[in-house]
Amino acid sequence: MITRIDHIGIACRDLDASIEFYKTTYGFEVVHSEVNEEQGVREAMLRINGTDDGGASYLQLLEPTREDSTIAKYLAKHGEGVHHIAFGTPDVVATTEEATRTGVRVLYPAPRRGTSNSSINFLHPKDCHGVLTELVQAADAATPSSANSH
Amino acid sequence: MITRIDHIGIACRDLDASIEFYKTTYGFEVVHSEVNEEQGVREAMLRINGTDDGGASYLQLLEPTREDSTIAKYLAKHGEGVHHIAFGTPDVVATTEEATRTGVRVLYPAPRRGTSNSSINFLHPKDCHGVLTELVQAADAATPSSANSH
Repeated sequence: MITRIDHIGIACRDLDASIEFYKTTYGFEVVHSEVNEEQGVREAMLRINGTDDGGASYLQLLEPTREDSTIAKYLAKHGEGVHHIAFGTPDVVATTEEATRTGVRVLYPAPRRGTSNSSINFLHPKDCHGVLTELVQAADAATPSSANSH
Repeated sequence: MITRIDHIGIACRDLDASIEFYKTTYGFEVVHSEVNEEQGVREAMLRINGTDDGGASYLQLLEPTREDSTIAKYLAKHGEGVHHIAFGTPDVVATTEEATRTGVRVLYPAPRRGTSNSSINFLHPKDCHGVLTELVQAADAATPSSANSH
């Protein structure tokens, strides 16, 4: 079950410059930043609003830390812009399985670590009408096991 | 002032097929649809969650109605995918002027009609690190005049 737009992931060449742009233009503030070595990104989360599931919606700014990362390849091909969208769910395993049942391919056989120790998976953009789609379960979300959640 | 992610605008070749995809994969429902002849689009809004400013966040699916429309050109160049992001504001004129003051170009000299009689403008993607960015004021939002709102 999807309960919110969790974030919009935006690929940028210079994280500090993009942070400055969003602060100057809209007043958005960084509420969290980290380096995810597995994904090869340095990232900043800008909180935009709270959501009625008790979570929030963010912009996620993503700068590559190495040339073989997904974001570096995206930038080389497309330039800066929206890289993916992410839906929040209380159970990423169950929601991923629900999507898989309809024939959508997932990128990881099991969830990986996302921002702030969330659990994430991605749905293949070719199966989602061109939209790379992330499913994200917050670290503090209820975590029913995949066995009894459906 | 921005108070929410209002929607993510997604370009699609076949609106009915995309609606079916989002319904089957996630259970999302169409809460509004319309044809905007000025923009040259047939569109559907899928409500994802409520937001703490009293509004909501949507996916906006956009199919072109004519070949010279912005969405048709986007599809020809990029294929299906995320076309723009939209931030909600109680005052689109004031928020647009705030962005302009920082050097960002806007697409329209005055707001135009968007979905459900909202008032919208767009910020130029080249001034927004590659992200075509819409500002949207809902039809039922408080409407201070631009003269006294800042």
